[in-house]
Amino acid sequence: MAITENVTPTLAPGELPPMDVGSRMDALRSRFGELGVDALVVTELTNIRYLSGFTGSSAVLLVREADAVFVTDGRYTTQSEQELSDAGVSAHIEISSEGPEAAAAAAASGVDRLGLEADSVSWSSQRRWASELFSGELVPTTLAVEALRLVKDAGEVARIRSACAIADTALAQVQSRLSEGPTEKEFALELEAAMMRLGAAELSFDTIVASGPNGARPHHQPSGRRISDGDLVVVDFGALVDGYHSDMTRTFAVGDVGADRTRMVDVVTEAQAGGVEVVAAGVQAAEVDARCRSIIEEAGWGEAFLHGTGHGVGLDIHEEPRVSGRSAATLASGQVVTVEPGVYLPDLGGVRVEDTVVVTDNGCERLTLASKTPQPIH
Amino acid sequence: MAITENVTPTLAPGELPPMDVGSRMDALRSRFGELGVDALVVTELTNIRYLSGFTGSSAVLLVREADAVFVTDGRYTTQSEQELSDAGVSAHIEISSEGPEAAAAAAASGVDRLGLEADSVSWSSQRRWASELFSGELVPTTLAVEALRLVKDAGEVARIRSACAIADTALAQVQSRLSEGPTEKEFALELEAAMMRLGAAELSFDTIVASGPNGARPHHQPSGRRISDGDLVVVDFGALVDGYHSDMTRTFAVGDVGADRTRMVDVVTEAQAGGVEVVAAGVQAAEVDARCRSIIEEAGWGEAFLHGTGHGVGLDIHEEPRVSGRSAATLASGQVVTVEPGVYLPDLGGVRVEDTVVVTDNGCERLTLASKTPQPIH
Repeated sequence: MAITENVTPTLAPGELPPMDVGSRMDALRSRFGELGVDALVVTELTNIRYLSGFTGSSAVLLVREADAVFVTDGRYTTQSEQELSDAGVSAHIEISSEGPEAAAAAAASGVDRLGLEADSVSWSSQRRWASELFSGELVPTTLAVEALRLVKDAGEVARIRSACAIADTALAQVQSRLSEGPTEKEFALELEAAMMRLGAAELSFDTIVASGPNGARPHHQPSGRRISDGDLVVVDFGALVDGYHSDMTRTFAVGDVGADRTRMVDVVTEAQAGGVEVVAAGVQAAEVDARCRSIIEEAGWGEAFLHGTGHGVGLDIHEEPRVSGRSAATLASGQVVTVEPGVYLPDLGGVRVEDTVVVTDNGCERLTLASKTPQPIH
Repeated sequence: MAITENVTPTLAPGELPPMDVGSRMDALRSRFGELGVDALVVTELTNIRYLSGFTGSSAVLLVREADAVFVTDGRYTTQSEQELSDAGVSAHIEISSEGPEAAAAAAASGVDRLGLEADSVSWSSQRRWASELFSGELVPTTLAVEALRLVKDAGEVARIRSACAIADTALAQVQSRLSEGPTEKEFALELEAAMMRLGAAELSFDTIVASGPNGARPHHQPSGRRISDGDLVVVDFGALVDGYHSDMTRTFAVGDVGADRTRMVDVVTEAQAGGVEVVAAGVQAAEVDARCRSIIEEAGWGEAFLHGTGHGVGLDIHEEPRVSGRSAATLASGQVVTVEPGVYLPDLGGVRVEDTVVVTDNGCERLTLASKTPQPIH
């Protein structure tokens, strides 16, 4: 199927196309019947940001049939008014010094069936809602807002694309330094500084630089180990642009890594390309995982592919849909996912290759474009 | 009361004194009677790190009376064995591809009263434990492990002290740049790069640089606004050393800020010093808040002090005890807290001054030592 690749210039924040935030609460309301609720208490901050534009660290959003109540504390009075207004979101803003949940509960007092986001609301919080805050029926909801977030609009894709372009450019700027014997941590810092200079608002997540035997740990943290000849180096990193993440992994061969490591790189690169080829609207996410896994299994390393193939990317670095053998998700146009098979061997190190792609009707478009050809660094 | 100040050199990770991680699970077990449990499922990752030394992103730790079962997934096989061993922790390590909770539940099958960390376990997860995973009594626990984390041992204080020293040194290196008209974001990046060069493992949290009118937002994110003459600039930042955080805020006056802003700085600086003077073992955390608040109220800005006075600092940037008017906590020797009053005025901007201090029998020791004298930058 078609895999598109468009090189995109890095955009300044002011140049990003607008997102239609103002319509999202109505989209949520249209799910109330299916969810079995008359109103929903949104406590997950990423979901609050999605629905309201608010970027702060403390808020509760009560979405009722006819209106919405946004509760935050005094630190965020000015910021919440500005951000909701900028996003074109209408909600009653309430400032509470007693914790936002109590104020949201007061506003929900007339509701019969009140949804709580059961995957993020703590058991303590639910017990408090049930015993102190609310006398109606509490309904556990799952993925109520996340289901809306699955398919990205053009403004969201533009932000992820911009974050991916920053990561591509940053890697191109610093990758030759791998031959100069930096420590993992030094290389990670250079890569991160390059992304920040290029306009990343923050890092997408803690950069992974895993060299030599450290590569056998998929989530290794950059250490003081010096990168040297004969190493495979797994570099997994990303940028954040206006709340949206990028995610990319490349594995570099430094100097002469020998035949076994070269084969690892070849197999994982082939598996990753195979997985990307399968991605298209209407395809089961599990099929993408199966394609990657079968290529790695054929090479005899099935046991060494220690994780699922990928995940959604958006306001969270890991979000729906999951791309794994156990995923029940069907891919849809506008979803953004990673494809990132890997092989991890204590003796040889690790290889992982990862792109962030946006699903299209006929295939997908790669958003991370850095070269994946086995990359000897001398 | 006594306020100690010892200037501490930055320590390399290898030079940090050891922590006694291996004894912590026994300390937890000694609380089982009080908690009303026969075993506890620890799911909060920071608590797992505290009890086991594991730094990864996926694990469940089941602490039973006689032993412990540590469950993670295949990405962390090597890392978990190494980290638990390095920490002197004994636990049965199980690798599960079906999610760590199911394997932990299987290991808990003989338990009568099983504690779940109710403040972090989601309502969904509790529902799954109750319906699928466990047939005995599920007991909601609160602060079960956090109560142990309140008082830091010497190894923990050394890590926080080292993180604070990195922040102090980094600020000294870059603060003169405030007069050169950087944007908030540029200044934040310089400060962050300095901390990383000095050995921070990561940032303690997203740096706040809030200049001029932006200072009225206590949690403002660094923007493209250029810092210029007449600005107050709130700089709130920290470093991470081996998992432990530092937290410090200083407010700079750039050029001539006028009499009102100068008075804001003076009042908040006095309030902060007053709060620090109150800190000592046996003192109510609320008394510290009351002292800061009364000084700011006397100056007529009580309404503009928009938040609590402080919080505990350790493996989390915000942890127990809370230092606020509503806190029921009594300070104890070895606790580490911040004292950070502030005044926020839309017309004039913001002032916040913050130290991280360790509570002693007779007072406290400051760990953040950067000068707090009103600091005109020209």
